[in-house]
Amino acid sequence: MAIKGNIIVGQSGGPTAVINSSLAGVIEAAKDAGVKKIYGMHNGIEGLLKEDIIDLNDHIKDAQDLALLRRTPSAFLGSCRYKLPVIEGNEEVYEKLFAILEKYNIQYLLYNGGNDSMDTVKMLSDYASLHNKPQKFMGIPKTIDNDLPMTDHCPGFGSAAKYIAASMKEIIRDNAVYGETRTNICIVEIMGRHAGWLTAAAALSKGPDCCGPDMIYLPEAPFDPEDFMKRVKELAKTKKSIVIAVSEGVKLADGRFVCELSGGSDKLDAFGHKQLSGVGTYLAQRITAETEFKARSIEFSTLQRCAAHLTSLTDADEAYGVGYLAAQKAFEGCTGMMVTIQVTSRKPYIVEYSQFDIHEIANVERKIPQKWIINDGTYVSDEFVKYARPLIIGELQPHFAGGVPVHITLE
Amino acid sequence: MAIKGNIIVGQSGGPTAVINSSLAGVIEAAKDAGVKKIYGMHNGIEGLLKEDIIDLNDHIKDAQDLALLRRTPSAFLGSCRYKLPVIEGNEEVYEKLFAILEKYNIQYLLYNGGNDSMDTVKMLSDYASLHNKPQKFMGIPKTIDNDLPMTDHCPGFGSAAKYIAASMKEIIRDNAVYGETRTNICIVEIMGRHAGWLTAAAALSKGPDCCGPDMIYLPEAPFDPEDFMKRVKELAKTKKSIVIAVSEGVKLADGRFVCELSGGSDKLDAFGHKQLSGVGTYLAQRITAETEFKARSIEFSTLQRCAAHLTSLTDADEAYGVGYLAAQKAFEGCTGMMVTIQVTSRKPYIVEYSQFDIHEIANVERKIPQKWIINDGTYVSDEFVKYARPLIIGELQPHFAGGVPVHITLE
Repeated sequence: MAIKGNIIVGQSGGPTAVINSSLAGVIEAAKDAGVKKIYGMHNGIEGLLKEDIIDLNDHIKDAQDLALLRRTPSAFLGSCRYKLPVIEGNEEVYEKLFAILEKYNIQYLLYNGGNDSMDTVKMLSDYASLHNKPQKFMGIPKTIDNDLPMTDHCPGFGSAAKYIAASMKEIIRDNAVYGETRTNICIVEIMGRHAGWLTAAAALSKGPDCCGPDMIYLPEAPFDPEDFMKRVKELAKTKKSIVIAVSEGVKLADGRFVCELSGGSDKLDAFGHKQLSGVGTYLAQRITAETEFKARSIEFSTLQRCAAHLTSLTDADEAYGVGYLAAQKAFEGCTGMMVTIQVTSRKPYIVEYSQFDIHEIANVERKIPQKWIINDGTYVSDEFVKYARPLIIGELQPHFAGGVPVHITLE
Repeated sequence: MAIKGNIIVGQSGGPTAVINSSLAGVIEAAKDAGVKKIYGMHNGIEGLLKEDIIDLNDHIKDAQDLALLRRTPSAFLGSCRYKLPVIEGNEEVYEKLFAILEKYNIQYLLYNGGNDSMDTVKMLSDYASLHNKPQKFMGIPKTIDNDLPMTDHCPGFGSAAKYIAASMKEIIRDNAVYGETRTNICIVEIMGRHAGWLTAAAALSKGPDCCGPDMIYLPEAPFDPEDFMKRVKELAKTKKSIVIAVSEGVKLADGRFVCELSGGSDKLDAFGHKQLSGVGTYLAQRITAETEFKARSIEFSTLQRCAAHLTSLTDADEAYGVGYLAAQKAFEGCTGMMVTIQVTSRKPYIVEYSQFDIHEIANVERKIPQKWIINDGTYVSDEFVKYARPLIIGELQPHFAGGVPVHITLE
């Protein structure tokens, strides 16, 4: 393949523990292909529109930098939540963007993100195709939510799932510490607005040394608070320590979020967004009000996406792989596609990478198959565990200094 | 020394990541001394009163079991929150306890816990001394709160501090991900009802690759919500990403807990206890209501005491050390004392162990020295960092299977 110019890469949306491993993959692919300038968008496409561009050759200089980059959580280049407008009627936005690309002789643009970010790749490649622009645009999948279609799973999910599974094991042990002397109920609220992949990962805590959570509630199944209370009371007849995993996005049969019942969601709603926190608190409060049991709620919050100290090596290596391949495919002339992961065997675990038309991917959310949701919507099946287990295997050990993991910064 | 009979060990109060390392130390000391029977109280003194006793020789059989025990969070034997009554007028409780000790030929009783647990050791040794009983009673310090007196620090604190410091680094990175595009404020609520050691540990996140939290609020300094809001608005003039560490126990000048302002504390108050959660939520809600900034709160909750996957090796080794020495001292005839840690040099870090009269320790809370609290009660000084840094050094790596840490269970 003949390299025609420079490359730029952007990170977008909520970060993950391995989004920088994808960046490392892009950088190494570009170096291996002899690309002269490797640029980064500072804060995604929003930064690019302001010509806020980073010369990555200045920042990631050697193998040590790359190793640290892979161990650094959050988006090294900074992220954004900016969505490109429709092309028709907004041509000036695209003209501006392409003028910047031309100014820096950028021939390859890679964008690493979830659903909204793949929409950006789609718009840019559509515009290029409409106007016969030569630049290539490739999407790199990333989302802890694991809800991108056409790929077996998404980089970022494995590490979040590992953090959730390990922390659930620890919480389940902690919750049982008073044995038969009191009934302790712990509600663990887990991210995932519309897809329950992360919450389901709580099931990965189950094993010979851990009973796992007692119930798992996903947004894919309607939630009935009365039935929930009935089940808790029933469980408490035979079990003193009860731990329940609940998605932040569980919904009533009428479609309202359960957290709306608590009123909690209104309080933080400064930007007109529904703040999906509070379902754990709401359920713990109901238990306390209606029973004599001790109840508390725990929310993993952003820890589940930034706990790089417990990164899955499988996940980090795949994140690197999709980054590397996205660049390689762009160099070969591919455009308007996202790199995907296919699992050809789950045991032993074997993956292949491919790429898929971005039009089939952007704005489509993949949910947990209904057949994997069991026990009247209160647990996930072994099929889920078989699906997710390989993704959390292995550890990308942090480099420690002064007792804490070392990161690399832009400054 | 001549071993006179069997030994029993109990775990009490809230667990830590290293309480089982102390148990491992006791078991090895007893084995090394040739003690025949090593008993464990199932759920502390409350279990002992019901003769709920575990034969540890059946459970911890070899070096592999001991290694797993050290990597298992929460109290392996189960814990309790039972406080022995005053001796006068309650002699029958003590007679029952001593009858059980005699039945099992237990000559050495070790109790691992915090303030309340040291009170138990005091009561038992006082009763033995009053009634010329031969048994020896020793206390083993343990508390993430780090508030036991007469010891430089408490086993359990180092690992909780390491978890807090590492997680704060990750949260600070995550919070800054949108760069200059929006003001993101994150309030991190940390455990510690009356002493701010754990919250202060947030300062350990600061280093060449991390700016650390912007403010740190401890229960040792009065909290003024109006001044807090003023400082947040001032900070936001120059900084888009703001992370603030707040103790669950921060109090107004009039002595009320700040979380009482939110009303949140009443809701979970099923047992007449003040539930100290909600100050983070309260402050985030105030920021959202009074400014245009995006604010969220994160609560580490029990994760900070059970995250064994991030155990400080220094802490685990010291926990083992105080357990081993407590047994050894009991065998030598010591009673009514708690093993303490003295730091003879902080750099290089050198410790010595000693023991101290339990009467000077039980029910006394050690707080952060006022001189270490700086910036009008909004930060901690470098002296605190010098004090705490050595305690978080080193990692006790978990044994992983299926992608999650392996634990050992009683069953």
